[in-house]
Amino acid sequence: MSKLLIVGTLAFDEIESPFGKTGKILGGSGTFIGLSASTFGVESGIVSIVGGDFPESYLKMLNDKNINTDGVEIIKDGKTFYWSGRYHNDLNSRDTLVTELNTLADFNPIVPNNFKDAEFVILGNLHPSTQLSVINQMDTRPKLIALDTMNFWMDSALPELLEVIKHIDVITINDEEARQLTGEYSLVRAAQKIFTMGPKYVVIKKGEHGALLFNKEDIFFAPALPLEEVFDPTGAGDTFAGGFMGFLTKTRDISFDNMKRAVISGSNLASFCVEKFGTERMEHLKIDEVSERLQQFKELTQFDIELD
Amino acid sequence: MSKLLIVGTLAFDEIESPFGKTGKILGGSGTFIGLSASTFGVESGIVSIVGGDFPESYLKMLNDKNINTDGVEIIKDGKTFYWSGRYHNDLNSRDTLVTELNTLADFNPIVPNNFKDAEFVILGNLHPSTQLSVINQMDTRPKLIALDTMNFWMDSALPELLEVIKHIDVITINDEEARQLTGEYSLVRAAQKIFTMGPKYVVIKKGEHGALLFNKEDIFFAPALPLEEVFDPTGAGDTFAGGFMGFLTKTRDISFDNMKRAVISGSNLASFCVEKFGTERMEHLKIDEVSERLQQFKELTQFDIELD
Repeated sequence: MSKLLIVGTLAFDEIESPFGKTGKILGGSGTFIGLSASTFGVESGIVSIVGGDFPESYLKMLNDKNINTDGVEIIKDGKTFYWSGRYHNDLNSRDTLVTELNTLADFNPIVPNNFKDAEFVILGNLHPSTQLSVINQMDTRPKLIALDTMNFWMDSALPELLEVIKHIDVITINDEEARQLTGEYSLVRAAQKIFTMGPKYVVIKKGEHGALLFNKEDIFFAPALPLEEVFDPTGAGDTFAGGFMGFLTKTRDISFDNMKRAVISGSNLASFCVEKFGTERMEHLKIDEVSERLQQFKELTQFDIELD
Repeated sequence: MSKLLIVGTLAFDEIESPFGKTGKILGGSGTFIGLSASTFGVESGIVSIVGGDFPESYLKMLNDKNINTDGVEIIKDGKTFYWSGRYHNDLNSRDTLVTELNTLADFNPIVPNNFKDAEFVILGNLHPSTQLSVINQMDTRPKLIALDTMNFWMDSALPELLEVIKHIDVITINDEEARQLTGEYSLVRAAQKIFTMGPKYVVIKKGEHGALLFNKEDIFFAPALPLEEVFDPTGAGDTFAGGFMGFLTKTRDISFDNMKRAVISGSNLASFCVEKFGTERMEHLKIDEVSERLQQFKELTQFDIELD
């Protein structure tokens, strides 16, 4: 059985939205990626760092979903990464209120021995040097390495970002960030430029407008499911990426046709994530709900038309 | 053979974009709808009004595409509707520089006798009372009436707009306008509210982000084709609507499954419209190009996935 290695944050989030205000709740890219991938029943392991304030119960919840946390370093007298944000009324934009790196400031990732042979690796949004360090610790070149990043690293660590991008297969990035990274407004041209930087696949995330998957020859589009209500978008992008990689880890097929299924799976899972605050929806998601909504995706997108 | 009645403007457009500046060129909602529908070889007729300055050659070009212009009133000593706009660098937003209604200010549409039995009617973006007048002139209730409108009429003629909406089957409207009309941010909820106003089908146009088709039970999504370059978005929405109605007029099947094909056809045709200034691309579009790009739409959206 193939394994998925996840590098990302385990965090405390505190969120304000038009629907209310949470206290400190579980968040972080590693958390959302792991929960999403776990819906495929794959064996995964998280590499991360937390403080002594991180509840044991959170780690147990992850372990119960077959997410190994041996790679999570616990700094007893340190504090866990904390992020607080406020969403605007349309939930499409937000202000960051507080970011406290805490233990994350000195994060030196250690890949556990039993994950050094993982076939699938996803490098969640972290400093590009941290991401590169993980790649360098692998015993064998993984079958597929995906990387998520954001504009913050383009502004503050572009050379390191360009270096790690050389060593990966799939980059997931949002539309504005793809434009910033390449200087191209057209997402088709942006993807073409990113191919020259190393990746063989580009996934451009457009939030409520869906996601585009590119390789050098083909394009595929996965819509976001139109929802009556979006409650909290936090983690949706990571949930998408986790679903994408979870599906690939389960099926071990990295053909473009299978990647199409993987982005649909990611989009499907992200549609659940936003229905409740934080990880609540993902923690209690049932496989039947996932299958049922996949049927909705088919109805939403599939058509038959004669080509004259 | 079934007929399509089109009500809309024939206009002079003058466009500035990062790619250059046109002189006065052919434009107008009726023009773009007609050209787009004509790719399906259907018999259509335009009801509109122009001034003596409107070139005979434009009418002939339309006639050569089986677009009847008997319903186009020519005011010899009047001037044709004129619109001028400037697109911003991203081509996603524009400023209107000049709008001269001219003959359009006193437009009193007259449906030619041989189109009073048209099975398909599309009411392009005009004053809602003008749109209603056309419906009232029909001898028999058409099989399907579609209406396009915009925020301008919501601001200036809302009661008349709400009245005409009661009498139609399909409304095409962009996302911001759907939100304005209903006070709902979620497009799913906006569509539900529009159903209570009369229409049985709602098409929400999202520009480069595609279009959503709703009936009371189902949702379908047609993406816009990702393009390397968008040259001039003018008329894309009308081209989409014309393709949608042209396809339905040709096939005479208004099941939801066939409407899916119709929105894909509309999206397909709109992808050509934006490739050159004004009507240039649509005037010279070949059927082979349309079929070939339809294949691209299939590759862009179709996937097979097992439901567990």
